[in-house]
Amino acid sequence: MYVQEKENMTKKEGNRDIEQLGEFGLIRLLTRNIKLKHASSEMGVGDDAAVLDMKNRKTIVTSDILTEGIHFDLIYTPLKHLGYKAVVVNLSDIYAMNAIPSQILVSISISSKFTAEMVEEIYAGIHLACKIYHVDLVGGDTSSSMTGLTISITALGSAPAEKITYRSGAKKDDLICVTGDLGSSFMGLQLLEREKKIFEKSRNMQPDFSGYDYLLERQLKPEARSDIIQLFSDQQIRPTSMIDISDGLSSEILHICEASNTGCKIYLDKIPLAAETKKLSEELNMEAITASLNGGEDYELLFTVPLTEYEKISSVKGVSVIGHITDKKDGRYLVMPDGSLTGIMALGWNSLSG
Amino acid sequence: MYVQEKENMTKKEGNRDIEQLGEFGLIRLLTRNIKLKHASSEMGVGDDAAVLDMKNRKTIVTSDILTEGIHFDLIYTPLKHLGYKAVVVNLSDIYAMNAIPSQILVSISISSKFTAEMVEEIYAGIHLACKIYHVDLVGGDTSSSMTGLTISITALGSAPAEKITYRSGAKKDDLICVTGDLGSSFMGLQLLEREKKIFEKSRNMQPDFSGYDYLLERQLKPEARSDIIQLFSDQQIRPTSMIDISDGLSSEILHICEASNTGCKIYLDKIPLAAETKKLSEELNMEAITASLNGGEDYELLFTVPLTEYEKISSVKGVSVIGHITDKKDGRYLVMPDGSLTGIMALGWNSLSG
Repeated sequence: MYVQEKENMTKKEGNRDIEQLGEFGLIRLLTRNIKLKHASSEMGVGDDAAVLDMKNRKTIVTSDILTEGIHFDLIYTPLKHLGYKAVVVNLSDIYAMNAIPSQILVSISISSKFTAEMVEEIYAGIHLACKIYHVDLVGGDTSSSMTGLTISITALGSAPAEKITYRSGAKKDDLICVTGDLGSSFMGLQLLEREKKIFEKSRNMQPDFSGYDYLLERQLKPEARSDIIQLFSDQQIRPTSMIDISDGLSSEILHICEASNTGCKIYLDKIPLAAETKKLSEELNMEAITASLNGGEDYELLFTVPLTEYEKISSVKGVSVIGHITDKKDGRYLVMPDGSLTGIMALGWNSLSG
Repeated sequence: MYVQEKENMTKKEGNRDIEQLGEFGLIRLLTRNIKLKHASSEMGVGDDAAVLDMKNRKTIVTSDILTEGIHFDLIYTPLKHLGYKAVVVNLSDIYAMNAIPSQILVSISISSKFTAEMVEEIYAGIHLACKIYHVDLVGGDTSSSMTGLTISITALGSAPAEKITYRSGAKKDDLICVTGDLGSSFMGLQLLEREKKIFEKSRNMQPDFSGYDYLLERQLKPEARSDIIQLFSDQQIRPTSMIDISDGLSSEILHICEASNTGCKIYLDKIPLAAETKKLSEELNMEAITASLNGGEDYELLFTVPLTEYEKISSVKGVSVIGHITDKKDGRYLVMPDGSLTGIMALGWNSLSG
């Protein structure tokens, strides 16, 4: 990890400062201010591997890979936000296990169009996320790429065995709950794409994002719901199943039902939507509810709790009870406002962005 | 991890079978035969994150990223070997901590030129490495890329606290030891590059690798030295410092000296070279010793032991004692056969391949 590669990072135009630094120099630059803060981090960057001590807790680990042109468009994605978001999406997976993240490893490959300053900007976002979420950057790798930027992050965390929450624990009659509001990140992306098209047609036009700051922030700088995990701990709420919403509500609830071998009923009019999401959908002639069902990148938590927890959970600010778990044979349905049923299908982002 | 991304993997030509599968289908295909074998693997692919139990041992973790056109050339790299090697280079980092690897996470981004069959071939190599090294594939991510293949692997392992070996523990008079032979992987690469050039000039020429199978294997399908870590355990040898050789001997011994705040003397004529390495260097008018000092990808272990272990370590087959640790003020030198000294410089692959 963080070793010199055979590539000649020095021979390409455009990153002369990286040439002067060399790869070891770049790594030193990017990791120079790291101070390990988490009690479980024993050794970070600077050896063949990092050394962690999870004590008597289980180790939780997840990886994501983000690719330029697929997961992000550098035309409208600030590099610092990109670094921040790349960390957050991984931490969200750790929280979704009802665990606490503690370390990340960051592997990045950069093409010759990147300067050291640009890479530092990405790392500024990574370091900021580490600070806010109390995790240590303990390792990774840097390399050249022929084209484009790829960021691959692994997050580690831990939890006592009895707290770990899988997708598979939902039981009949459990309440289905969701944090925050859904679809706003997807609507933020629609807005950015619209303004990009306008900008490409007429370079003099300035993008018009007025009134939609919230949607942009949800798309460009999402947060993971550490607060909810803390609340579960404080209020001794033990979800029976949990997943983070990265691909839209439909896809995620089906994952829970599939893993738990259950059915579900979700009430359409209970799904939380932000006012800005509704407003922009009208403006764009889209259905706001579609963004929440099939959009993505909400990084909210979808979880189930026993019916007996109804009072406790419905009093929590920022949590909506949107339905309940049923027997598998009763199917997986959306209940429309008129009481009619529609089967839930996992369309995900594909069908929306296609 | 292993979630559906917003990209439309289905819209590109060339990977129609991946289109039919969808990303979830592809993941199911690639992970369908996984049976968790390691005692520490509690939950693998199929939830937001993997769950591991390292008991009272420390968790060791490392990541590497491999990029097409930089770390590998698909013209002469069989996909199965590529998958195998991508795992091995990470495991090598775990062994270099005197630890035992137990899990990997694999994140991969593929361009439209890849078919499901090709991705399966890469995973066949990954699964084979998992089998041979007794590690479980417990997570990761799959995504599209605009161009090229990127493989990012994280390896986890564990060790009791007292066994973990850092780069920083070398002491004056410690013996410097190396496993196997050095430079052969680099010479294998030279051979492949030579034959590629000949092939590009005249498509009818068949590549001529006769007599050099060993060099090709070292380059295309290297192994990590699990046997040496086992031997340390069996013979109760406790190295004072250790690193794996991925960038050439010079670079790695300087890492140990830097981290341990020491000097060193390495005897040029003690550096182990394979007969094939010597033969091909003559053929190509290169210095074999340069390949061992500044080549890369040997994935052998460089370690130090106390002088008192001399008899024990020098009797081990496949381990060469090549020098000793000195005071920092005495410098870091290569001792030439005539007794003269040359300063050790970290050139690494850059200078050789530039």
